[in-house]
Amino acid sequence: MTTTRRGIAAGLGGALLLLDATNGAFAQATDLLPSWRDGPRRRVLMDFVAAVTTAGGPDFVAPAERIAVFDNDGTLWVEQPAYTQLFFILDRIKALAPRNPDWQQDPVFRAAIAGDMRGVAAGGTEGLLKLAGAAQAGTSPEDFRSVAAEWLATARDPKWGRPFTALVYQPMVEALAFLRANGFSTFIVSGGGVEFVRAFSQQVYGIPPHQVVGSTFALRPGETDGRITLTREARIDFIDDGPGKPVGIARQIGVRPIAAFGNSDGDHEMLRYVTEGPGRRLGMIVRHDDAAREYAYDRQSHIGRLARALDEAPARGWQVVSMRDDWSRIFPGG
Amino acid sequence: MTTTRRGIAAGLGGALLLLDATNGAFAQATDLLPSWRDGPRRRVLMDFVAAVTTAGGPDFVAPAERIAVFDNDGTLWVEQPAYTQLFFILDRIKALAPRNPDWQQDPVFRAAIAGDMRGVAAGGTEGLLKLAGAAQAGTSPEDFRSVAAEWLATARDPKWGRPFTALVYQPMVEALAFLRANGFSTFIVSGGGVEFVRAFSQQVYGIPPHQVVGSTFALRPGETDGRITLTREARIDFIDDGPGKPVGIARQIGVRPIAAFGNSDGDHEMLRYVTEGPGRRLGMIVRHDDAAREYAYDRQSHIGRLARALDEAPARGWQVVSMRDDWSRIFPGG
Repeated sequence: MTTTRRGIAAGLGGALLLLDATNGAFAQATDLLPSWRDGPRRRVLMDFVAAVTTAGGPDFVAPAERIAVFDNDGTLWVEQPAYTQLFFILDRIKALAPRNPDWQQDPVFRAAIAGDMRGVAAGGTEGLLKLAGAAQAGTSPEDFRSVAAEWLATARDPKWGRPFTALVYQPMVEALAFLRANGFSTFIVSGGGVEFVRAFSQQVYGIPPHQVVGSTFALRPGETDGRITLTREARIDFIDDGPGKPVGIARQIGVRPIAAFGNSDGDHEMLRYVTEGPGRRLGMIVRHDDAAREYAYDRQSHIGRLARALDEAPARGWQVVSMRDDWSRIFPGG
Repeated sequence: MTTTRRGIAAGLGGALLLLDATNGAFAQATDLLPSWRDGPRRRVLMDFVAAVTTAGGPDFVAPAERIAVFDNDGTLWVEQPAYTQLFFILDRIKALAPRNPDWQQDPVFRAAIAGDMRGVAAGGTEGLLKLAGAAQAGTSPEDFRSVAAEWLATARDPKWGRPFTALVYQPMVEALAFLRANGFSTFIVSGGGVEFVRAFSQQVYGIPPHQVVGSTFALRPGETDGRITLTREARIDFIDDGPGKPVGIARQIGVRPIAAFGNSDGDHEMLRYVTEGPGRRLGMIVRHDDAAREYAYDRQSHIGRLARALDEAPARGWQVVSMRDDWSRIFPGG
């Protein structure tokens, strides 16, 4: 890759990048992956990208097919002690509560308004989906995204007291840029709500809204004051998790990706779908084994449980990335 | 735009292009729109692109927000005497009929197998959706796209005897490239089936599969021989037409586009959604008024009926492109 083209890439920041796509020249990882320690995982990532970008090589993949998909929670940013979107939902429910006095009749809403996490948890998935629906119903996608962006600008993570968007994994941000510099298109495939992730994906990951796949609430078209409106309803119409991830990928991306990055059993089907395809493939699992710098959890965790995908990783050729051993730093500037 | 960057653009062919996105330099239309006659429509298109790409200007739009959407049938390629996808469906039903003897019990299927277009039409929309469902149910998205691509390689349009993919509108292909050369991302938003359009969008329009929004059949996840499968069902789960187009755009693109191109009342809501947004906007309607070189139809046509959108065009500021007057040629090489 020439300096000139790299210069254009850097200048374009997070926008759609496509560089050196035709000649297969390989953007060296040594300067693009500084937060990855020299070791087997960085080598596997570099070797994979070198192989699929080597024109005339046996594993060459045309740029249009160089699609990489990334889970978000626990893969690109922190998901403990609870998903960031849950903190947002609870804050939003509290903010909207005065306008919705009937919510006091429902124990899950009452718990949310009181900040009683045990009471919220007692409502199970059904309770959470009710809260999630109520936190956004009646807004347009554009308004919802503004609300989420405003919240992200001021909310703080309970452990570090930093903005949630500062708690992205620097090595993964580098991996995204490294892949894009080598002609890949990078997509997020998240179990979280698509509009929530779109509120920060461009700014934080360089991933535009149309390259975010996620769970969706139903959208109702209508008209107000002579203008077309789209209104988010309380009803979830697609859950982009587990077996839903290959469906979401096929519907929105339309091409089976050649690389997938996840961290939990919710990514199992996505990892399988990607790595069961023909030709050279890459599946990577981020393992949270760094209690000192982040968290250590896998089989026993209610959030981001990693058991089946971990058991099957060796046989399926998935690379298990150790946050402790493979990453020289965890967070940007940290 | 420098020659070097233009050179890269040309070299990359139909892949994702993003050029000159940061400095707002304007790729001149004079050499990128050779099939547009010098006249008000070409000037409006050029002026719009110049305005939104002029850094520091009042109408400047950042590259990430430069999204243009295009209807497909009748806007990018011929839709008469019937949608191309209908020819495909009928050929596919005939090919699959020997394996589906029970189809003979259904009058719509019997008509399709016999090539009796009047009988097919008598089944109405419900009949057509049944045929469309049956033509693809049970296949994976990848297999379906292969079948569609094979059909497109050999099928011929009944009027010109040419491949359907040769009957794209050269001025619109130029408009797509012109927009991309100016930092736009171009999307198709079609009432047609998304996988059918994806079978040729990259090759013919330079639009990758993930930038195609369309109607969808339900996808069923499963497993066969230890591999994850996705199977298309006969049931349509989203119709990306009329009021569905803004919904499809919001779900998949996630940003309100700033430019929309359509040709029929099925694009009315998309044109409104795009041009009702704040800031500088462009809405263009391709009007089929060229019986000598293509077709002439609008208010009375069952396919691509254009009445309401035409009536409202002046008040809404939509540009009506005359194929006869504004385009010096219609088809590539023609």
